[in-house]
Amino acid sequence: MAKIAPLSGFPEWLPAERIVEQQVLDTVRGVFELHGFAGIETRAVEPLEQMLRKGEIDKEVYVLRRLHAEGDEPDAGLGLHFDLTVPFARYVLQNAGHLEFPFRRYQIQKVWRGERPQEGRFREFTQADIDIVDRDALAFHHEVEVALVMAEVFRALPCPPAVILVNNRKLAEGFFLGAGAADAAAALRAIDKLDKIGAAKVAALLESDAGLSAEGAQKCLALASIRSADVSFVEQVRALGVEHPLLDEGLEELAAVIAAAQARMPGAVVADLKIARGLDYYTGTVYETQLVGYESVGSVCSGGRYDALASDGKATYPGVGISLGVSRLVSVLLGKGLVRASRSVPTAVLVAVSSDEGRTASEDVAAALRARGISTEVAPAAAKFGKQIRHADRRGIPFVWFVADDGTHSVKDIRSGEQLDADPASWAPPADDLRPTVTLVAGPVSAGTDSEESTS
Amino acid sequence: MAKIAPLSGFPEWLPAERIVEQQVLDTVRGVFELHGFAGIETRAVEPLEQMLRKGEIDKEVYVLRRLHAEGDEPDAGLGLHFDLTVPFARYVLQNAGHLEFPFRRYQIQKVWRGERPQEGRFREFTQADIDIVDRDALAFHHEVEVALVMAEVFRALPCPPAVILVNNRKLAEGFFLGAGAADAAAALRAIDKLDKIGAAKVAALLESDAGLSAEGAQKCLALASIRSADVSFVEQVRALGVEHPLLDEGLEELAAVIAAAQARMPGAVVADLKIARGLDYYTGTVYETQLVGYESVGSVCSGGRYDALASDGKATYPGVGISLGVSRLVSVLLGKGLVRASRSVPTAVLVAVSSDEGRTASEDVAAALRARGISTEVAPAAAKFGKQIRHADRRGIPFVWFVADDGTHSVKDIRSGEQLDADPASWAPPADDLRPTVTLVAGPVSAGTDSEESTS
Repeated sequence: MAKIAPLSGFPEWLPAERIVEQQVLDTVRGVFELHGFAGIETRAVEPLEQMLRKGEIDKEVYVLRRLHAEGDEPDAGLGLHFDLTVPFARYVLQNAGHLEFPFRRYQIQKVWRGERPQEGRFREFTQADIDIVDRDALAFHHEVEVALVMAEVFRALPCPPAVILVNNRKLAEGFFLGAGAADAAAALRAIDKLDKIGAAKVAALLESDAGLSAEGAQKCLALASIRSADVSFVEQVRALGVEHPLLDEGLEELAAVIAAAQARMPGAVVADLKIARGLDYYTGTVYETQLVGYESVGSVCSGGRYDALASDGKATYPGVGISLGVSRLVSVLLGKGLVRASRSVPTAVLVAVSSDEGRTASEDVAAALRARGISTEVAPAAAKFGKQIRHADRRGIPFVWFVADDGTHSVKDIRSGEQLDADPASWAPPADDLRPTVTLVAGPVSAGTDSEESTS
Repeated sequence: MAKIAPLSGFPEWLPAERIVEQQVLDTVRGVFELHGFAGIETRAVEPLEQMLRKGEIDKEVYVLRRLHAEGDEPDAGLGLHFDLTVPFARYVLQNAGHLEFPFRRYQIQKVWRGERPQEGRFREFTQADIDIVDRDALAFHHEVEVALVMAEVFRALPCPPAVILVNNRKLAEGFFLGAGAADAAAALRAIDKLDKIGAAKVAALLESDAGLSAEGAQKCLALASIRSADVSFVEQVRALGVEHPLLDEGLEELAAVIAAAQARMPGAVVADLKIARGLDYYTGTVYETQLVGYESVGSVCSGGRYDALASDGKATYPGVGISLGVSRLVSVLLGKGLVRASRSVPTAVLVAVSSDEGRTASEDVAAALRARGISTEVAPAAAKFGKQIRHADRRGIPFVWFVADDGTHSVKDIRSGEQLDADPASWAPPADDLRPTVTLVAGPVSAGTDSEESTS
C-alpha cells in the first residue's frame, strides 16, 4: 500500500506538537475569560449569499453538497465559513433579543479557505477571536481594550516577543483627504501595497488612482513611514503640515490607544502608520501583529473597529474585534523549532506491572493517583521492567511506579534515576511535572520595540 | 430585514448554554488526560475514496468543492469526515513511525453527516473519542479499560445516571452459530432490529435470513433478553444449552469486563446481550450507553473492539474505542432543562465606573484581580450604579466592585446585597463563585442499575 501523504494546506500535528497547540489554545482562552469574554461557537456553515456580500473573498469559499443530493436540498447553498466575523455578525442578529449589550464574546474555531497553501497560509486553520459589539453606539475605550487583551495573550504565550501595530482609519483617511486625495480609499489600497511593490510604485498609484499631487503622494509616503512606541507620532504627523478634522479625530484616538498601552503594557503596542488592513469595513482603530524576528510570516493577529458589524431594520451593531491566527502562530513555533513540549502525553506516572496477576494492584495505584489529579497510566504488559521504563521514557513520562511482591511501593524519577519509597495515597510529583510544559527553546529574541524605546 | 432562522441540524448555543457544553468538554478532556490519553486533532476533510470503503454511510457525506473550482483541483474529491475513527485510522497509518504503541489518543472534534435532522440527531455535531490501538496485537484488558474511563466521565459530568451496556461479538456470533445459524452476520443484523420491529418479526428474520430453526430463533431471542449488572448472565446463557468455542471465549471476555467494572464502578456497566452495533468492523466487546430516564434519545456513547482498525502492507493495527456524543448529550441536558449554568459569562466581578475620569482607577482594580486569576470586567459606561448593577445581574455576575471618590474600595454581593470593604490586592470571591458552575436542576433520577442490583 502506498504511503499516505499529508494533504497540503491541512496541517495536522503529532501528539507532542498538539500539546504545544493545546497549550496555546488554553492560554488564549484563559486570558479571554479573565477579561470576561463569553465563549461561543457557531456552526461551520453559512449560507453562501450571506458570505459573498463581501466581494473579494468569494473565490476562497468551500461549497458543500451531499454526495447523493437530490433536487432542492435544505442544505444546498451552504459554504464553510472563511472567518469568524461573518458568522458572529449573523449570530448577533439572530440572537439579539437574548444577548446583553455590549456583548463581549470569544470564539476559537476552525475556518476554511480554498487558497493556494504557502508558508503560514492554510486551507484549514484555527482562529481565536474576541469582539465587543454594542447596539447603536460602541464606546471608544473598547478599541484600547482589545489590543491590551491580545498583548496580554502574547505575554502569556510561549512565543517570541510580539508587537501589535496599530493605526487608525480616520487618521489615514483624514490625512489623505487633507493632502488632496480625491479618493481616500484608493490611497489606502495603494499604501497597503507598500511592502509588496515599494515606495516608487506606490507614489505612482497615489497620483494615478487617488488623485494626489506628487507632493501630496510624498506626504502620504512620509506618513506611512512613521512608527513609534509612544505618542511622539502625533508631532511627527503634525510636522507634515496636513490638516483635516478627521485627521484630528484619528490622531486623538490613536494617541489614546498608545498612551494606555504604554502605561499598562510598555512596548507591546506600537503606532505604525502604514498599517492599512485590506478589508474595507474597518472605520477606526486597526491592528496587525508581528512576531519579532519572524516578520516574514505576516501578521499573526489582526482586526479593527467597524461601525456596522451587522444591522437589521431596527438597529445597527458597531463593534471592535481582533483575531489571533492560532495555526499560523503554532506553525511558526513548531516549524522554526522555537518551542518544545516536555512530553508527548499528559501522563505523569506510568505504573509498572510485575505480572499479569499483579495488574490489579497496579490499577489500584493508578486509581489512587488519579483521584488526586495525577495523570497516570498502567503499563500495557508485564514486560521486563527495562522495557516498561523505555515505554515511559520514549514519551517523556517522568515517573515509573513499582509495586514490589511484598506490597511495598516505590517511584523512580527516570531522568535522574532516583528511586524512593512512596505511598499512593499521598505522593505527588513536583508541580512542574504534573502536566506537560511547553518552553521556548531559544531565549526570547531581543524585542525591536525595546531597542526603539531606548533610542528614542 | 427578515428574521434570521436557525439552520435545522446545525445546533448553536447561547452563551449560558455554551457554558454547559464547555463544562462537559472540559470534564471529558480532564478525565481522558487523567488516564494518559494524548489529544490529537485531524483535519476536517478526508479523501472520499477513503471514507466510502465502509459502504453504508456514503450517502451521508458532505462533499466539498471550491466555489470557483477550475478543472482538476488538488482538493477535489474531499469530503467532511462523518466520524473520528476513519480519520484516526488514516492518522495512525500516516504517522506510525512517529507513534509509540499501544497508542492511547483522545480526539474531541466536530463531525458532519447529511442526515435528516431529528431529536438528538444533527448534521453537525461534536464527538469525544478515546481509542487504544496497538501494532499486530492488542491486549484484552484495554476492552475493560475504555468502558471504565467512560463510566468515570459520566460520574464526573453534570448529567443523569448513565449505564454503559456491553456485549461481545464473539459471544453473539458463537451463540448464533451454536444455535444453528448459517449466517451469523444476518442473525446479528436481525437482533439489531429488536427495538424497532419487535420479537415476532425478528424471529421471522432469524429463520428466513440467518437460516435458524424456529427453536434456534427463540434461543437467540432469549439470549437478547439477558441483562445483568453482575456476571450472572454467564449462567443464564449456559442455561439456554447452546455450545460453541467462540461463545466460550466471548462469555469469558464479557465476564471479565463486567467483573472489573463491578469492582471499580459498581452499577455503571451492565451486560446487555441484545446490543449489536450496526458497524460490522467490531470483533469483540461492543458498547452502548443509555441515560437513565432518557433512553429514547438513543445511545450517547458507543464503540467497540476492532481487530483491524487499519492495516498497511507491513502491519495490522487492532484497537478498541468508544465515542461520546457530546452534542446529543448536551442537547438532552439543555432541551430537557436538566442543568443550569450559574451565569452566562466567565466574569466573577464587574468593577463599576464612577465617572469617565474614574475609569483608570476601575481598570487598576480589574488588573489587580485578574493578576490573581479572578475574571473581571470593567463596566462599559459611567452610568448610574443601579444600571451598572443590573448589567452585572442580567448576566449572573455575582460581585460588583466600587471605588469611592476618597479612594476606598468595597465589593457588593448583588445576590445578598451585602457590601464590604475590600482590598484589590487580596480580596477573592468564594471558590464556588470563581468560575461559572453547572448544576443538575432536578436531583438525579434513581438509577435503574442500582435497583436492578438490589433486586438481583
